[in-house]
Amino acid sequence: MFFDNASTTIIDKEIMNQLDMVNEKYFYNPGGLYENGRKSRAFLEMCRNNVYSAINASGDDDIVFTGSATEANNLALFGLLKKNTRKILVSQGEHPSIYNVALEMKQRGYDVDFVSLTAGGCVDFEDFKNKMTDDVDIVSIMLVSNETGAINDVSNLVEYAKSINPKCIFHCDAVQGVGKIKVDVDELGVDMLTMSAHKIHGCKGVGALYIRKGVKLKPVVYGGGQENGLRSGTENLLGIFTLSEALRIACTNLENNYNYVLELKKLFLNKLSDFNLEYVVHSLDCNSPYIVSLSFLGCRAETLLNMLSDKGVCVGNGSACSSKKSGNRILESMGRSKAEIESNLRISFSKYNTLDEVALLVEKINECVSAYLDKVR
Amino acid sequence: MFFDNASTTIIDKEIMNQLDMVNEKYFYNPGGLYENGRKSRAFLEMCRNNVYSAINASGDDDIVFTGSATEANNLALFGLLKKNTRKILVSQGEHPSIYNVALEMKQRGYDVDFVSLTAGGCVDFEDFKNKMTDDVDIVSIMLVSNETGAINDVSNLVEYAKSINPKCIFHCDAVQGVGKIKVDVDELGVDMLTMSAHKIHGCKGVGALYIRKGVKLKPVVYGGGQENGLRSGTENLLGIFTLSEALRIACTNLENNYNYVLELKKLFLNKLSDFNLEYVVHSLDCNSPYIVSLSFLGCRAETLLNMLSDKGVCVGNGSACSSKKSGNRILESMGRSKAEIESNLRISFSKYNTLDEVALLVEKINECVSAYLDKVR
Repeated sequence: MFFDNASTTIIDKEIMNQLDMVNEKYFYNPGGLYENGRKSRAFLEMCRNNVYSAINASGDDDIVFTGSATEANNLALFGLLKKNTRKILVSQGEHPSIYNVALEMKQRGYDVDFVSLTAGGCVDFEDFKNKMTDDVDIVSIMLVSNETGAINDVSNLVEYAKSINPKCIFHCDAVQGVGKIKVDVDELGVDMLTMSAHKIHGCKGVGALYIRKGVKLKPVVYGGGQENGLRSGTENLLGIFTLSEALRIACTNLENNYNYVLELKKLFLNKLSDFNLEYVVHSLDCNSPYIVSLSFLGCRAETLLNMLSDKGVCVGNGSACSSKKSGNRILESMGRSKAEIESNLRISFSKYNTLDEVALLVEKINECVSAYLDKVR
Repeated sequence: MFFDNASTTIIDKEIMNQLDMVNEKYFYNPGGLYENGRKSRAFLEMCRNNVYSAINASGDDDIVFTGSATEANNLALFGLLKKNTRKILVSQGEHPSIYNVALEMKQRGYDVDFVSLTAGGCVDFEDFKNKMTDDVDIVSIMLVSNETGAINDVSNLVEYAKSINPKCIFHCDAVQGVGKIKVDVDELGVDMLTMSAHKIHGCKGVGALYIRKGVKLKPVVYGGGQENGLRSGTENLLGIFTLSEALRIACTNLENNYNYVLELKKLFLNKLSDFNLEYVVHSLDCNSPYIVSLSFLGCRAETLLNMLSDKGVCVGNGSACSSKKSGNRILESMGRSKAEIESNLRISFSKYNTLDEVALLVEKINECVSAYLDKVR
């Protein structure tokens, strides 16, 4: 039973079934100056159009396909960085692909500040107001937390940021939002937005960066000048197709999937409360239902995770999509205790999880937590 | 008929047929701390071992998987760059993913020099000797030219470079060599070496960088710390598998494929000489047989390429794996005339091309060149 879907997901069968066709018809280099190259180019642009539609972007804006969402986040921030960039503002809740970029910028001598989080895991608006001064040139705040599912009020943050410095560029890592909750770049008002394929049943190794018209970036990777000069390297059409298709499928079923997963989350929390376990839920009711962060006090997360694994259950601890845990930093910023942090698990759902699986998950958790505590007592 | 295989290739059916299995068994995040995550991790390391074997690398060295060979080339050069790097030496014949990185370094104020090419398209050893001074810290010379198939005597160049500055780091872009000619990192003596999947019937969007033990790099992309901290982002196991498999298949059949493709090249040149056409071949007999660069004097390459496309023939002009042509720079460095450069085509073979196709290719070229010249005369 797989409950680590915020980390990665299986590729939809519907998508896998089309890969042979894509390989045979569109393996040609989109840079080839012959008919088949032009057909690959047209196919690439069709995929790009699907991405535009998924986030309600205008054709005047740009979508750059990258080798991962991590790379898209790096491109967004490093791409904006200039010698005279005055201040960079990100949140304590960001994914390592933003947070560690910000740390690297600090290392290079830039003025970088970190907005703290509320107890619920959202960006603290009061702290944001204090730190969002008129010398902030770059802001990056995520839409949905990969740790807790907390949803930031990005449109409000953008509005405030622009009221202080109309020329600041606002980037949003929407990897855990796109295809799961409604994402409209105009409603959000963001200048750039990052997407991933493998969090919504597409391939790993494919990301995309939305760039609003007028925003100028420098590339991170230099070469043949593909993707409008911003991401050189032969276009990975097979992977890009899976992003396009995954978005199309996810957005078509967005509301149904959302309601279904919300039902899974509610069942999980309800069933859990039936047992006599001591735990703290860090995810609020209003969070994305796809992610539940919680702590079983007294149980070290890694041990518990291994016990669950022995029973065939996959759950995450902290951000398992990175090889170094970022969960501590985020829960710390939310004011959680050491005991809560050490015992923190992340349960994340997908459309493929069933109600029966969730019921079984809770039973297995109860067994493991009880066995764990029996042992240590 | 596809004769632009130096630009990209179709994915082997044998590989495509395994993708469903890889997706179902190994979609789990290799960073996941549960049994299935560990299985993905083991599968990833098995793929890495295949890459070690393909280039005869030691397990003490490192292989970093990237989102493309372009990214691997960027990582190699930018990763080495320090504030106090004194001089960077690359060749005029490099792929844009090295050449444009070198230009960007020059732009940033670094001392960058370019070694010229011989008439045959190899690095000019005399010029290399002049420019390889003891303040050169980074050298990057490709193994096989993507334009002409010219093969550089890399082991000799490495030996000379190390005799002048034993501490210089020598990188080699072997994208057109690995899986096609014998590549042994110890025989070559290189410190780093770049590979690509999609040039040898693997997926696009996957590259790898070999890094000899002791060579220290800074990452280009920051995030979760995957790939030994050098390439963050969830590992693209499906893509990495295709690189591993493509290498295994290519290396198993290396000699047979080489001899077969050599036969194709010889047939092509023989048949071509039967017709009464005016052309110049830029690729020497000793080059990689996978690539033939030639010019049909008086025929603008793009027009000829379009005429061939109308007859169902795909050939390349200059480096079609980039959206901006680099062919001019390389042929210029080889001392070719403007007329030769303007009419330059690149024919590149794969194991899937047949003798009959090659015979037909020559006929189509004859028809198109004749029709072209009839029109303009």
